Amino acid sequence: MHSFQELSKQFSDKFKLDHFPSQPQGLYEPAQYFLGIGGKRIRPIACLMSNELFGDIENDTWQIANALELFHNFTLLHDDIMDEASLRRGKQTVHLRNGQNTAILSGDVMLIRAYEYLNDINFEILPVIFKLFNKTAKEVCEGQQYDMEFEKRENVAMDDYLRMIKLKTSVLLAASLEMGAIVGGATRNNCDRLYGFGKNLGIAFQIQDDYLDCFGDPAKFGKEVGGDIRRNKKTFLLIKAKEMVTGRQKEELDGLLAGDDEDKVERVLTIFRDCGIDMWAKELQKQYADKAFQNLEDVVVVKARKKPLYDLAEYLLNREY
Amino acid sequence: MHSFQELSKQFSDKFKLDHFPSQPQGLYEPAQYFLGIGGKRIRPIACLMSNELFGDIENDTWQIANALELFHNFTLLHDDIMDEASLRRGKQTVHLRNGQNTAILSGDVMLIRAYEYLNDINFEILPVIFKLFNKTAKEVCEGQQYDMEFEKRENVAMDDYLRMIKLKTSVLLAASLEMGAIVGGATRNNCDRLYGFGKNLGIAFQIQDDYLDCFGDPAKFGKEVGGDIRRNKKTFLLIKAKEMVTGRQKEELDGLLAGDDEDKVERVLTIFRDCGIDMWAKELQKQYADKAFQNLEDVVVVKARKKPLYDLAEYLLNREY
Repeated sequence: MHSFQELSKQFSDKFKLDHFPSQPQGLYEPAQYFLGIGGKRIRPIACLMSNELFGDIENDTWQIANALELFHNFTLLHDDIMDEASLRRGKQTVHLRNGQNTAILSGDVMLIRAYEYLNDINFEILPVIFKLFNKTAKEVCEGQQYDMEFEKRENVAMDDYLRMIKLKTSVLLAASLEMGAIVGGATRNNCDRLYGFGKNLGIAFQIQDDYLDCFGDPAKFGKEVGGDIRRNKKTFLLIKAKEMVTGRQKEELDGLLAGDDEDKVERVLTIFRDCGIDMWAKELQKQYADKAFQNLEDVVVVKARKKPLYDLAEYLLNREY
Repeated sequence: MHSFQELSKQFSDKFKLDHFPSQPQGLYEPAQYFLGIGGKRIRPIACLMSNELFGDIENDTWQIANALELFHNFTLLHDDIMDEASLRRGKQTVHLRNGQNTAILSGDVMLIRAYEYLNDINFEILPVIFKLFNKTAKEVCEGQQYDMEFEKRENVAMDDYLRMIKLKTSVLLAASLEMGAIVGGATRNNCDRLYGFGKNLGIAFQIQDDYLDCFGDPAKFGKEVGGDIRRNKKTFLLIKAKEMVTGRQKEELDGLLAGDDEDKVERVLTIFRDCGIDMWAKELQKQYADKAFQNLEDVVVVKARKKPLYDLAEYLLNREY
């Protein structure tokens, strides 16, 4: 059995290989560049761990892990175009570096390459992996669509936001875990529990992400604290705040969101604190984390084998950066 | 056995169904709109015919046919963004109708939907179909990349242009035919010959396309004759002409290409005729058409079964519009 750190290193090392032919360079070099920017490789690692719950990691799982990471990067590459992002993990985005057309086409070929990695897995499990992969891929696109639509809307209901987060973030982590379990020959029940673990963990992670952007320790948080507030980004916290405020507080919040005052972040945070949004978010995060841990506990496997997945969850939920 | 017309009608009718869920409408409606614009549906029909060479059309082939047509439309949707095209078959392109971000994302989900149609085919042939599909999909992206690069280049060698056309146009038709044959249980030899038939037919078709744009009968040709010349589009004809002209003729051609004179089309066509480019193009087209028909003849199946494929080829090569 491998620890979180061991699997993380093993996957990162293997993933460094060239995933594309050399020609045409104009198509493949930008794709390879984008993969080289790095990232936490959470989804493939989760897939490998999930397989190892049920036995040794099989070659098929390494293939699926590559497919998952390529798919994830394809979504990031295209999302960067749509969001007009200039940086990704501190590096220039492909559409700025190589032009928009290249970013579209290199993203397309990255998605196809993801499918190519599924090609060689055992033909007996290929149909079920392929089906889950396709279903998840569509859901992630749906999540991105809702996310773009919500940006243009004045108000977003909490349930709608939650569904968007599930689609855009959670289902891919959930599917990664289920795929590892499928290769490991897990029962349907165990597959469902691992899917649930990933889904709830993903939501808890996103709440944490939204929380840290507001209440993170500036010394530990990599980005500017309050960036979401400055950009009026709809987050768990802002949506909840908008639901709660009334009277003068509502007027003040609406006024702050309409403008770009220098003390905007500070004053919105004061409203958040006055409404108890910080505590509410911590509590909501805990609820989803508890659900996730319950799902993991319910997987019928000796507890010791679950340690790497607990470590992964702790890593995702207890980070302060 | 079905005639070209029968299969064409059957496929078009079946393909009219909704390929996407209703929600989120902003994602799926543009994709469904684009599919509804129409088209000749050549690739799926070729796939169905190829299957019918070897027996009754199987359900798997209908699935693959859907996948091929969806993949083809995905490439068109994204190409329209890259080419900044405003019309596709007389209808507004998606990036103009719904915005660029929607066009990117709806294209992405169309590609995923194509893969979804492959999901349910017989698990014994899925790996081989999937592999050919992936290989071909990558090649089509490579073709689009070369096409974009060539637009920015002063000169393109004939061999490079030919390779681009093979990748961008021919391999998908070739793969469509091979997939139909695979479902039909054809031998490797027959698969290869049908692939060759499609590859050569695709090139002959493109030469015809380039030829008609210059020398087509304006009364029959749907588009403005000379459109390629007006836009300095690199075609079989222009590339050959640039190879051939010297002295004053070269000066004149370069001058015409550098400008946008009202009589540009007429004068470039005169140079083409003076160099015998029209005859050369007809001869080259015939060479590839002959190769294609030889490939089809070499398929080891009673000749009568091949009639629909001969009809398809004649339809593609003898059209004057």
